[in-house]
Amino acid sequence: MTDFYGFFAAFLTTIAFLPQVIKTFRTKSAEDVSVLMLVLFITGLIFWIIYGLGSNALPVVVANVITLIFNVSILTLKLAYGKNKIKTEWR
Amino acid sequence: MTDFYGFFAAFLTTIAFLPQVIKTFRTKSAEDVSVLMLVLFITGLIFWIIYGLGSNALPVVVANVITLIFNVSILTLKLAYGKNKIKTEWR
Repeated sequence: MTDFYGFFAAFLTTIAFLPQVIKTFRTKSAEDVSVLMLVLFITGLIFWIIYGLGSNALPVVVANVITLIFNVSILTLKLAYGKNKIKTEWR
Repeated sequence: MTDFYGFFAAFLTTIAFLPQVIKTFRTKSAEDVSVLMLVLFITGLIFWIIYGLGSNALPVVVANVITLIFNVSILTLKLAYGKNKIKTEWR
């Protein structure tokens, strides 16, 4: 039963970023999204993947690779749409 | 060594949300942040905490409680600042 909570938790914290990808793509704006958050989070995800590979934890690897794809998409969209807004870029 | 990667990963994916809290508080705007993302993510974090408690994984509990506090703060600030922007609230 405890495992069910873990899988459900992983599903939710992974899929959560899809609405942000869709919203950013639709509105062509992510000025309010912190670049520093995305950079720290993406770096963390890479270390989760390294940890998952090192400890043969396939669910950890899979969940974090999907979350990584979503977050790299958000960061790419943000940087693409915010090119001319250097002032707020790193806040 | 693998454990080090795990702890470092947990540290980064936890602390990542602090810049977003600070940015949202400073700019008084989180229109570009998806409410659906925050709601799904917060729900996921609650299930991570249940999972952590059920499997006596203290680091999982601690990391997710801190991440939960940050994300509830972001959601609260967003809802407070976006009161009059019902149109974009759920995108």
